[in-house]
Parts: sequence; C-alpha cells; structure tokens
Amino acid sequence: MPQDTLAGAGESSLGFVVPQRARFDEPLTLKSGAQLPSFDLVYETYGTLNAARSNAVLVCHALSGSHHVAGRYEDDPRNVGWWDNLVGPGKPLDTERFFVVGVNNLGGCYGSTGPLSVNPHTGKRYGADFPLVTVEDWVAAQARLADQLGIDTWAAVLGGSLGGMQALQWSLQYPERIRHALVIASAPKLSAQNIAFNEVARQAILSDPDFHAGHYAERGVVPVRGLRLARMIGHITYLSDDQMAEKFGRQLRHGEHRFNYDVEFEVESYLRYQGDKFAGFFDANTYLMMTKALDYFDPAYAYDGNLAAALARAKAKFLVASFSTDWRFSPARSREIVFALLHNRRSVAYAEIDCDAGHDSFLLDDAHYHAVMRAYLENIET
Amino acid sequence: MPQDTLAGAGESSLGFVVPQRARFDEPLTLKSGAQLPSFDLVYETYGTLNAARSNAVLVCHALSGSHHVAGRYEDDPRNVGWWDNLVGPGKPLDTERFFVVGVNNLGGCYGSTGPLSVNPHTGKRYGADFPLVTVEDWVAAQARLADQLGIDTWAAVLGGSLGGMQALQWSLQYPERIRHALVIASAPKLSAQNIAFNEVARQAILSDPDFHAGHYAERGVVPVRGLRLARMIGHITYLSDDQMAEKFGRQLRHGEHRFNYDVEFEVESYLRYQGDKFAGFFDANTYLMMTKALDYFDPAYAYDGNLAAALARAKAKFLVASFSTDWRFSPARSREIVFALLHNRRSVAYAEIDCDAGHDSFLLDDAHYHAVMRAYLENIET
Repeated sequence: MPQDTLAGAGESSLGFVVPQRARFDEPLTLKSGAQLPSFDLVYETYGTLNAARSNAVLVCHALSGSHHVAGRYEDDPRNVGWWDNLVGPGKPLDTERFFVVGVNNLGGCYGSTGPLSVNPHTGKRYGADFPLVTVEDWVAAQARLADQLGIDTWAAVLGGSLGGMQALQWSLQYPERIRHALVIASAPKLSAQNIAFNEVARQAILSDPDFHAGHYAERGVVPVRGLRLARMIGHITYLSDDQMAEKFGRQLRHGEHRFNYDVEFEVESYLRYQGDKFAGFFDANTYLMMTKALDYFDPAYAYDGNLAAALARAKAKFLVASFSTDWRFSPARSREIVFALLHNRRSVAYAEIDCDAGHDSFLLDDAHYHAVMRAYLENIET
Repeated sequence: MPQDTLAGAGESSLGFVVPQRARFDEPLTLKSGAQLPSFDLVYETYGTLNAARSNAVLVCHALSGSHHVAGRYEDDPRNVGWWDNLVGPGKPLDTERFFVVGVNNLGGCYGSTGPLSVNPHTGKRYGADFPLVTVEDWVAAQARLADQLGIDTWAAVLGGSLGGMQALQWSLQYPERIRHALVIASAPKLSAQNIAFNEVARQAILSDPDFHAGHYAERGVVPVRGLRLARMIGHITYLSDDQMAEKFGRQLRHGEHRFNYDVEFEVESYLRYQGDKFAGFFDANTYLMMTKALDYFDPAYAYDGNLAAALARAKAKFLVASFSTDWRFSPARSREIVFALLHNRRSVAYAEIDCDAGHDSFLLDDAHYHAVMRAYLENIET
C-alpha cells in the first residue's frame, strides 16, 4: 500500500492541489479510553461541493497512504497522489461530478496529529505516548471533519485494504451518514497469519536499538533498521507469488553467483530499495499503531463472531471488490462480507477481478477493475 | 523445520544414541572455488550395516536440523531426534532392516566444521570467513562420509525441504551410489517469493548491530535480535494459514485488547517464543549460509532452466511427496520434479498428502503420510 507506487510520473489531469488543515478543539475519547484534548487533520479536496451538499466522497487510506490522493503539488510536481489513476476529471471517481476528500488519519505522519506532534501537556513530541488509535477512532475523527466541511451525508466512502475497513466501519458507526460503501481488497478482520506478519514487523521496530521505547525523535535518531525490515516483510505480502515470479524470477543481478551476502537476485534488490526508501520518510510509531489498528479491527467481535449480526445496522449500498491473486486479503475474505450483507438483504455488488498483482492490485489501473469502479460510481446519484 | 519440534517427549523406541565424529584431512574444493583444508562431520547411526553393505540409508536435514535424527541421549534424555517418529525399530524407516545415518552438514552449528570452528590458518573461529557451502558441497562431504563408513551405494537417501534437495542432488551428483531418493516437501529451486523471505531473514541478521560483520563470536556477543526475527519470519512460512487459524485464531491472551505492544494475540506469543528459543542456540552465520544454499539450489540452471534435461542423469528410483497446505513448497513444485523424471522415463511414485500443517507436515506422523513412507521403504530391497 505504498502511497508512492504511482508517483514519479509527474502527470495528473487534476493539476495542482493544496493540502488544508482542520483544527478540532473538542476532546476526542478514543476506543482505548485515552483522550486527545485536541487534534488536527490534514486533508485535500478535489472537485466542488454542490449546493445540496450531496456529492461528497471520502477516500480512506491504507497503511502507508496519506491525504494526498490525487493531483500534484506546485512545489513538488513529481509527487502525484497515490490514487490519481482513479480520481480526477473523467476518471472512475469523477471530480467533475463528485467532491472528493482525502484525509491523513489521526496518528499519521503526514501532518495530522500523531506521534511526531507536540503533546500540549508536556511541550515534547508524543512519540510512544501517543495513544493507540483504531479504525473506529479514525471514522469518528473523519466524522468531525465532515461536520466542519458541512457534509451531513457522504455519497460514498471508499478505500482499499485498511481503507476498505474504514469504509465498512462508516456504514456501521454512522449508518445514516453514508449512502454507498466501496470496500476494496479488504477483510472483515485479520487472520492469525495476517497478525503474525504484523507482529514480526512490529518486533523488527521494537527491537531496533534506535527505537528507544518509542522516544527516538527526542534523541534525534530513527529506528531505520526496524522500519526497513518491516517494509520488506510488508512488500512480500503485497505482491503475489506469480507476479514476483514474473517480475523478478530468479534473475541474477550480476549474471552469476557471487557467494556473498550482497544483492544477487533482483528480488533482493527490489526489497532493499523499497525498505530503504520507506525508512527514509515514514514514522515508526505511526507504523506500529497502524498495524495494531489492523489487528484490532473486527466488527463481529462484539457479536460473538457473528458478522451478519454485526452488519445488520448498515444501511448503505455496497460495492465489494477483491483480486484473484491477493493472498493477504484473499477473495474469500471479501466474500465473507458479501454473505453477511446478503444475509441482511442489503444491496451489494461484488466483483472478483483477475489481476496478477496481488494485494496491491487495488492501486493499479487494471481495465476490468476500473470499469467496475466507474460503472458503480456513475450510478451513484448526486 | 525445527529439529526440536518433537523434542521434550523424552521417549524413543530406539533408546540411547551416541554422536560420532569423522575427520577428513583431504582438502575439499567447494562450488564457490574456496577450499577447506580439512573438516569434521558429526553423525549418528541407527541399526546395523549388513554384510553386503546394501542396507544403508542417509537422512539429510533441513535448515535448522542436525545429525540427531532419532533416539535420545543418555545425559540429556529429553532431547529426542527430530525425525524419531519416522525412524526406529518397526517404524516406517525401520532400523531393524536399515542402517540409518544422520549427519550434521558442513557449515552447521551442531559439531561439524562450520563458522563456530577454529580456522587452522588463523587460530581463530572462522565466523564470517567460513566459505559459503551449497547443496552440492554437502553432498560431496556426505560422499566422503559414505566412503569412510564403507558404504558404496545408499539403499536410499531421503529428506524433507532442504533435505529433499540433498536427496535429489545425490541422484544427480552420484547417480551410481544411490538406489532410491525420497524427496519430501521440497522443490527443484526456490521461487522469487521464497528468496524474498530468505532475504528479509538475512537482512534481519546482517543489520543487527551485534552481528559485527559476522565476527560476533570473537566479541562474545550474539545477534539475538536478528536471529529471533529470522526465525519468526520462517515460522510463518512453515505453518499453513488454516493451521494458524485453527491453532491460534484471533485468541486474545488476556481476553481483551490492551492497547499496547505486549503480547495480545496468542499467535504473537507463539512467534516470540519460537524466536527467542531459536536465538538461544542457533548460529547466525550458519543460518545465513543455509538460506543461501537454498537460494542457490537449481539443478536446471546449467541446462537453461530445463529441469528434464538436468534430471536425465539420475538413475535412482524416486518417491516424491508433498502436502496440500504447504505454501512454502506447494505440491505444484513437487509435481515439477515428477514431470521432469517422467519425461526421462524414470521410476517415480508421487503422493500428495492432505494435511493441514503446512510445510512442517513432513515432520509429523500423519497416518496417510507415514503409510506412504512405510510402503515405499518396505519395498526397498536390502
């Protein structure tokens, strides 16, 4: 779920965009019981809110994404939004019809209040003292932003992976404030294997000697080794086995075995590059928190594991989409959501898309996938 | 492939066994071109070599295994061999019929010459200076042991995972010296995804500040963090998704979310325990080398990727076995070996066993699996 997967092209039909900042001075009580006295959310908008305020769409980001969903920045024109292929004039999520909002989640590291922010109580950065936030907390904070923007009801909330969990959660937490939920490459909860991968990534960060119990920023260091390993592990799960085989195979960097631990196979080079790049900009405490938000998400938990019972309160219409080669959140996981919605006689469209790119397929402009998205979004009344 | 998976039972029908040591003073030139002036191999034997010397069977170990295949030690009776459920009197590999040999591979850390040994040229431990060894080198060293034991031809060579690669390699490197090869839960080469997992494990060790470029032993430290992470990553790939779900699910340790980074889900506890235990006894340089031996193994490499051409020189009869839920080396990988052997009109039996335990199934005493092994081994003439 790299926000930079598609960056670098330097082209966007949306043109230049400008991030904005919203301030919330009312305290927010989190699911953990901790309270944030105040917080900021950084966000971007594309298109125009209509007079009826009925065409607003919220795009939720996944693990390493941000509010920068589409367009590019005047002072950094190569930084194109992470879902720019989907969002823009004439694109599947058409900014000539919709008013699209992207927001950096609470606890993020792209400008919204998070571990890198200064704790007003201590005058120091929060670091590890920033409370753990959950999908429910993100949705609550996003609702505050909707209030401030004068959006009573979203025409749609959408996202891929962890972003899809937020779209699903919106339908449960504010059933009257969302007309359509688009849940892409997602799951109703993590499996033990999903949690296991998150746990190894966390242990890589927590055991890095530069982590300093989460207060590395005060010491002017970054747990680079841990972040790098966490990202490498993540990348294996974002790609499919087939795609890795096709992209790298057993291709040797130097055409021969070198019998040392330098890069030999191309796939090693790819992983090291992705790991190094990520460790250069992402915050370790945010990463830890995001993985916990994933682990905790489980709307059926309060219903003895009965997902159908948990989804009974949803009123939105749904598009659920999955990708054939996604082994992180396989199609079977999406079907669980579909069946639970059907059990409640909810309106749900389901697309299982043949795409060899694994979990990261949701970020690509696969023709079938985008046709499904376009058809669904075009039929949403504004 | 934990050698200690089945340990702790403290029971073995084989009784007490005693490791032995063989010394080889003839230099061994490795595939890398490096030369070992001399080396030791530690091994165990079970059963009796018959007068015709025709009943010898070699058991090859996988990543973290050892020569201690079966039986237990008088001074450490809880330390039962890693394949004790398969090897013993009346067991599928029946020590009343066969003379079974287990050997710790060159470069290992259980007594054979490896990174922890003293380099005769410097008087210091080899550490990172121990040359990388390959599957071919292990087989060459095992052939020296066979010579010393007076075994001209193995009735069978068998192993699971990396051990299966050695059995396959025996059939190619010494086609006249092996009558049967049993290749279990193995593959003719690693996929890009397999290499990727190995690479993350290696990077965890290499980037541990206590690794000291592989010369940690001289400094009296161990790269515990890296070894621990490497083992945690490995364990995810040894188990199936289904088995993890069944074994741990989303079971909470304390019955509630704690909103911190201590163990919350049972699967986290399992991984931390496995990682800690492994880091307490395994050598990091050996681990690195074993993963490279896996990465390099590719008999078809010299035949432009044509596995059938590569296997044409094999003369042994084969049993190939795979497990339905093994996603590390899936049944499809075993079938590649079967098809390449059939192309050469070799005698090959193939069993695809329904077992929910993933890659580690080969270590278990699944009834169907052991029946297949027993039937095949009983039909080997001695």
